[in-house]
Amino acid sequence: MRIDNLQYANWSEKVFRQMREGQVDAVHVTIAYYETFQETVRNIAAWNRHFAAFPDLIMQAYTASDIDHAKATNRTAIIFGAQNPSPIEDDIDLVEILHRLGLRFMQLSYNNQSLLATGCYEDDDPGITRMGKEIIAEMNRVGMVIDMSHSADRSTIEAAELSTRPIAITHANPDAWHPARRNKRDEVIRAVTEGGGMLGFSLYPHHLKNGPDCTLQDFCEMIARTADRFGTQHLGLGTDLCQDQPDSVVTWMRNGRWTKTTDYGEGDATNPGFPPMPSWFRDNRDFDNIAGGLAATGMTTEEVAGIMGGNWYSFYTDNFTPAG
Amino acid sequence: MRIDNLQYANWSEKVFRQMREGQVDAVHVTIAYYETFQETVRNIAAWNRHFAAFPDLIMQAYTASDIDHAKATNRTAIIFGAQNPSPIEDDIDLVEILHRLGLRFMQLSYNNQSLLATGCYEDDDPGITRMGKEIIAEMNRVGMVIDMSHSADRSTIEAAELSTRPIAITHANPDAWHPARRNKRDEVIRAVTEGGGMLGFSLYPHHLKNGPDCTLQDFCEMIARTADRFGTQHLGLGTDLCQDQPDSVVTWMRNGRWTKTTDYGEGDATNPGFPPMPSWFRDNRDFDNIAGGLAATGMTTEEVAGIMGGNWYSFYTDNFTPAG
Repeated sequence: MRIDNLQYANWSEKVFRQMREGQVDAVHVTIAYYETFQETVRNIAAWNRHFAAFPDLIMQAYTASDIDHAKATNRTAIIFGAQNPSPIEDDIDLVEILHRLGLRFMQLSYNNQSLLATGCYEDDDPGITRMGKEIIAEMNRVGMVIDMSHSADRSTIEAAELSTRPIAITHANPDAWHPARRNKRDEVIRAVTEGGGMLGFSLYPHHLKNGPDCTLQDFCEMIARTADRFGTQHLGLGTDLCQDQPDSVVTWMRNGRWTKTTDYGEGDATNPGFPPMPSWFRDNRDFDNIAGGLAATGMTTEEVAGIMGGNWYSFYTDNFTPAG
Repeated sequence: MRIDNLQYANWSEKVFRQMREGQVDAVHVTIAYYETFQETVRNIAAWNRHFAAFPDLIMQAYTASDIDHAKATNRTAIIFGAQNPSPIEDDIDLVEILHRLGLRFMQLSYNNQSLLATGCYEDDDPGITRMGKEIIAEMNRVGMVIDMSHSADRSTIEAAELSTRPIAITHANPDAWHPARRNKRDEVIRAVTEGGGMLGFSLYPHHLKNGPDCTLQDFCEMIARTADRFGTQHLGLGTDLCQDQPDSVVTWMRNGRWTKTTDYGEGDATNPGFPPMPSWFRDNRDFDNIAGGLAATGMTTEEVAGIMGGNWYSFYTDNFTPAG
């Protein structure tokens, strides 16, 4: 099973064909950064049009077994996620509504403070809010995975503690390998993985040692060392591939509607756009490179298969349906 | 000039006639607790229907001089405010839009954490968020007053520091007089008043010593002592009168859409509804009692006039229009 647990491409037939070429069985796609509930529904409607237009290439997945069906019919399963809790606005009842519509991951915050948790760009992190505690319980109940990729440390650790089900960091790397605002310190990774949660390794260049010049060997060695420390079964991929997006999209990701000045996030004024991808991972066609690189580190076939998708598949099996 | 800087009644001809009977020249009315932008616009539309139905009793005020016109024509000026930043959702541009529609006060948080600041019921307060700093600057620019009545201490002090214009606590009392989650500690009152800001004294019974049994003398002595410490010119009234509201409204105020369990706020399970008002302040007809009580403390006529409305009027004159 080959799964990429985070992409936000400028979706097109070209991208969907590349998913098939790369034998990608499932992709967790972002459908909201700052979108309100109704704007998110509109994005789901746009996906419905993709599903109708390309029924031989893609299908929506609500459960892990939908991925089996996609694989058996040579298609890529698409799983919806939100990088911010903006789709639920201030309304706890929208968690169940959005789960029914297929939302399976939701970040509790995205860089900034949300109603639920603190983002990794805030100066101070008071942890999970009163509403955040209520929403965690509701996400646990319906089977929506708590994603803390863009959240701050204390909020992430508290979310792992408060959640009765495993949580995820869908796309980030260890801060010890490459210090970055978005990469995660050991105690954060430990809090998530020791509760059965998952870490998805990112290929977004700002999260890589040496950025776009990061070598395949460096990346795969980092994964192997992370596996030594936290357990292979808790690891997968979340490439953060933002293929074919214009730079206006990264400006939206960083600025939303919250500021009238320009926030450059992980970039800066001289480098405001999307960075180029590493040469060995241009797009969905290049997953074989990663599989080969992981094998070259000395990992077993089973370990490589787990990181390439098996571990996410197991996690989905346990966490996409109601508790009980 | 007689001004009440906070009411949220079940608005009716009866209430508007009582405002005239009590010679109230202006009332700051709450038009949103958790409402989104569009829900807030709907509440403004409902007010437009009141203005059309009762043109001899009420009119909307956009500026302090509109209050002069209301007074000259024997009407009560209505000033819009929001107790939560929910009307701007996550969109900084909505500050200017809502200012144009007449919103002159907006709380940065209401009991819980918001996108901008922390509420007084959260366990921990990290201060003003990244978005909060942007919104404070925008509110300063257009002339919308920052209200921190339901915010936590650090957030309030930081808001006073960050704002280039005076801010307000529209409805609360000193915690030193009656310890309560919603009453304010000395350093918070000092941070607000030393920047030219205002404190409006509340008559909501949970904010009063001995609750509904608080005496007029106790209340007015508290005001006199607060004046001694912080300066009379920074003080006014914000009664928090919630006349004729069913208890379902206080349940909405406390629970909004953020929880599936019941939060009792300042009440408890045995006392979940609106508390009864003190006998000497039943509604808008009883402001003379307060004026008399203040005079009985030994305050001068000018000081009493300031607290009964003159100070709010001066504050409105300076703070309802764009900076410049």
